[in-house]
Amino acid sequence: MAGFTDAEGVKRQLYLEDLAVGDRFTSAEHALDAQQIIDFGTQFDPQPFHIDAEAAKATFFQGLAASGWHTASITMKLLVTSCVPLADGIIGSGGEIQWPKPTRPGDLLRVEAEVLEIVPSRSQPTRGMVSMRCETRNQHGDVLQRFSPKLVVSRRPA
Amino acid sequence: MAGFTDAEGVKRQLYLEDLAVGDRFTSAEHALDAQQIIDFGTQFDPQPFHIDAEAAKATFFQGLAASGWHTASITMKLLVTSCVPLADGIIGSGGEIQWPKPTRPGDLLRVEAEVLEIVPSRSQPTRGMVSMRCETRNQHGDVLQRFSPKLVVSRRPA
Repeated sequence: MAGFTDAEGVKRQLYLEDLAVGDRFTSAEHALDAQQIIDFGTQFDPQPFHIDAEAAKATFFQGLAASGWHTASITMKLLVTSCVPLADGIIGSGGEIQWPKPTRPGDLLRVEAEVLEIVPSRSQPTRGMVSMRCETRNQHGDVLQRFSPKLVVSRRPA
Repeated sequence: MAGFTDAEGVKRQLYLEDLAVGDRFTSAEHALDAQQIIDFGTQFDPQPFHIDAEAAKATFFQGLAASGWHTASITMKLLVTSCVPLADGIIGSGGEIQWPKPTRPGDLLRVEAEVLEIVPSRSQPTRGMVSMRCETRNQHGDVLQRFSPKLVVSRRPA
């Protein structure tokens, strides 16, 4: 149902049993440009520093920067399409999110994810909770976002 | 620069000095439909439960549900355009986000925000950090998202 086909053409679908603490995943890259930043900002975060490169110069960000929710949304796209191939999808109840540095036009985003904890559910024998750390970096290695979600992950069907 | 014009046509722009712990704000409403959910999901969270109402029935969500990042992005739009009129904009470094219930087609979203803590910066005399609690609810009062951001808020210019 979910998961994805990797660069070698292999369909990848992981269940709870396939994960171990310390497992690491790296996504493909997303090339961000000013127009994407402005389009997202116009729809969801219409503030000068997200929608107007000229007006952005006089703001806290001193230039155009992506909405944090845009960085988060691109991160999710990378997780789903090329990073963590969970068989029943990436389903999170939430977590802590941080944006240590602004995301800028020209940034090439990729996500690195690591399994921190795996807790089989006592009440739901078909699944468990998996804690991960997801870092979104640009081509310079700068960490633009840290997100620590708790995911609902299915066991392999009997 | 930022802030917004309220329903009575009054331009509202708040600085750090204008905020007090316990201050509450309520946004306008956003009417969500299936097409918006599918459009956002297709672009940023292409999983069956976000992009295909029929396929979604056999998933964890048992029907079409919005990406959590879509709920977060709509929340930001409501905060910026009708909820918390900060003079230099709503600038957050991050926070804890939770999605207790799925956001569904037909939901009418609104945001309630409350000031939890105000900490003037020692190193930056022109601003401070403000902790808030932002709850996103639907027309039934269900809490769909809780977000507790720390915001950078400017003092009134001398």
